[in-house]
Amino acid sequence: VKTSAVSADAAERGEYRHFMLKEIFEQPRAIADTLEGRLAGNRVLPESFGNLAPEIFARVKAVTLVACGTSYHAALVARYWIEALAGLPCTVEVASEYRYRKQVVPSDALFVTLSQSGETADTLAALRLAKSSGYAATLAICNVPESSLVRESDLVLLTHAGPEIGVASTKAFTTQLVSLLLMTVALGHENALSDTAEAHVVALLRALPGKVEAVLDLDDRIAALAEVFVDKQHTLFLGRGEQYPIAMEGALKLKEISYIHAEAYPAGELKHGPLALIDEQMPVVAVAPNNALLEKLKSNLEEVRARGGQLYVFADLHVPMVEEEGVTVIRLPETDDLIDPIIFTIPLQLLAYHVAVLKGTDVDQPRNLAKSVTVE
Amino acid sequence: VKTSAVSADAAERGEYRHFMLKEIFEQPRAIADTLEGRLAGNRVLPESFGNLAPEIFARVKAVTLVACGTSYHAALVARYWIEALAGLPCTVEVASEYRYRKQVVPSDALFVTLSQSGETADTLAALRLAKSSGYAATLAICNVPESSLVRESDLVLLTHAGPEIGVASTKAFTTQLVSLLLMTVALGHENALSDTAEAHVVALLRALPGKVEAVLDLDDRIAALAEVFVDKQHTLFLGRGEQYPIAMEGALKLKEISYIHAEAYPAGELKHGPLALIDEQMPVVAVAPNNALLEKLKSNLEEVRARGGQLYVFADLHVPMVEEEGVTVIRLPETDDLIDPIIFTIPLQLLAYHVAVLKGTDVDQPRNLAKSVTVE
Repeated sequence: VKTSAVSADAAERGEYRHFMLKEIFEQPRAIADTLEGRLAGNRVLPESFGNLAPEIFARVKAVTLVACGTSYHAALVARYWIEALAGLPCTVEVASEYRYRKQVVPSDALFVTLSQSGETADTLAALRLAKSSGYAATLAICNVPESSLVRESDLVLLTHAGPEIGVASTKAFTTQLVSLLLMTVALGHENALSDTAEAHVVALLRALPGKVEAVLDLDDRIAALAEVFVDKQHTLFLGRGEQYPIAMEGALKLKEISYIHAEAYPAGELKHGPLALIDEQMPVVAVAPNNALLEKLKSNLEEVRARGGQLYVFADLHVPMVEEEGVTVIRLPETDDLIDPIIFTIPLQLLAYHVAVLKGTDVDQPRNLAKSVTVE
Repeated sequence: VKTSAVSADAAERGEYRHFMLKEIFEQPRAIADTLEGRLAGNRVLPESFGNLAPEIFARVKAVTLVACGTSYHAALVARYWIEALAGLPCTVEVASEYRYRKQVVPSDALFVTLSQSGETADTLAALRLAKSSGYAATLAICNVPESSLVRESDLVLLTHAGPEIGVASTKAFTTQLVSLLLMTVALGHENALSDTAEAHVVALLRALPGKVEAVLDLDDRIAALAEVFVDKQHTLFLGRGEQYPIAMEGALKLKEISYIHAEAYPAGELKHGPLALIDEQMPVVAVAPNNALLEKLKSNLEEVRARGGQLYVFADLHVPMVEEEGVTVIRLPETDDLIDPIIFTIPLQLLAYHVAVLKGTDVDQPRNLAKSVTVE
């Protein structure tokens, strides 16, 4: 008889009104647990991915990531990291698309799957397809050690997020991001990443649980902000670079639990269509924009100000932006570009949570959705 | 003094109420003009892309496509074609994302840009960046011969769509798709595409103007269907494979001119979030689904039927689907998987057009949008 490692009390809500809120607040601990034993001095330990990892990572020349839903968003962030830090070409695809098309398999490519449960039907089917397609190796990032995805992959990194009960994934997502950054560094060590750069990332990772703890202090501010969204039917989320997938994830959270039709766009695409939608009924949320983006957004916003367009900017302390008519700025603690996608996820999770609570939806069990999509 | 080749009457609306409708109905001719002189017997003439094209295509081992807005959707379709037919690895990216991140340039890669005007700021900047990044060659697919994009690219294929006045792109998009299919075949000829397969594609292309003409006969049916959408604030578009970008394009058209918040999803992602949104206020449009997709959609729909979810399916004659409570089927003439993305675009353009007319928006000049986005 196999006993689950999940202890009973870990599955209780404790002081929290919903599992989702508990899981949002567990993130500093979940991230620390995911880092535990995977760092040594200034290095990421490649053996964290399995005994064969050092040898496999040394010959990987390309990376393909496949996932669904929230895990897909984590993979999209990783693409920016993998190309910029490890210097390896990287493609990312939704599992249900990947498995049904005729694709070209790159030489010496690592096939990476991500799934909280490790039982997501399309992701598992994509892994099985990839194993017969000529990939150099397969790697799973997963939260459930006894899952099919883990059992069937060559290499594995377990996210130590603990059980996630809320249907809308929170701590599983941020620990996936941490895991992908570990993977990027381990791959980069064999390729384009210098020891100095590796040491820098490792330092950022060690400081990350504290940074996430600090950003959770925004909870009251975000709860107040949620009132703006509660009577809206639409929200547009904008991001750029590795924050674009975070905008996608923010929009997905709002969709999932508050039933607001939120959609994300890369900020540069605003003028190519969605600008026509913006009016007082569609607030615009901008995630961690850099200064150049902000200037462009503000010039766009002039055009829609007359239509009542309202901008809510999540920005770090370095962005020299002042609030003005139609522009609300939510400041986050000082951080670093590299880990910003993880940091900026937190207030978007809180935003979706508080909007859903105000709307009175079933936060932990939103309508029509299941925790693990084990059928196609 | 350079005289524009655009004749005055070509820019007049003639019998049509709006330029957009005129341009939708011009597509059979625009496609025929784009094919003119580019086919010979059973072959695509690689010289159509320029004198250097045969030599360049022979050494291309990967393709990168970069574009914005509607042109980006055309590029996304091409990815499916290029990997499946030409056997070359292909990546597609939004220009404003591509140019601001550190990317890895594949060996012997062709860098392809698409833009109706050839002056799209982000696409032009991406081209200039790519020219100093080590690509094997650059290729532009463009509708304006004297444009910057054309002048600055090694190879060019002009879409002979004629002047496009409506802000929402229609004939420029379908002629881009035709051009991308020509490019896929020309690249495939040097790689994975057999002569038989090439002859098959060429035959489909020759028949395409007539097929588009036939599907335009759906105009009255679509005009009637538009009444369902006119009082809706939301629409979900679903597609799979090379029809997923067509779903994106259908959603964009509806956004641009009817100001309905339409969003596209790859059908397999439905259960990973958007299913929570569906109720009687959010009709679901499914584009050319294959049977497997339909079965999955129908099982999903059971879950939301109770919430009033309504499904509108654009399907060809081969899909054995019957209308039932909550499911409306719009039949398209018999066609072929390969050119389906072009065929199925047409009714979605008509749908957006008729919804906009019913809503009384400024169809040719939608609010907040410009025809060419020549600033960032």
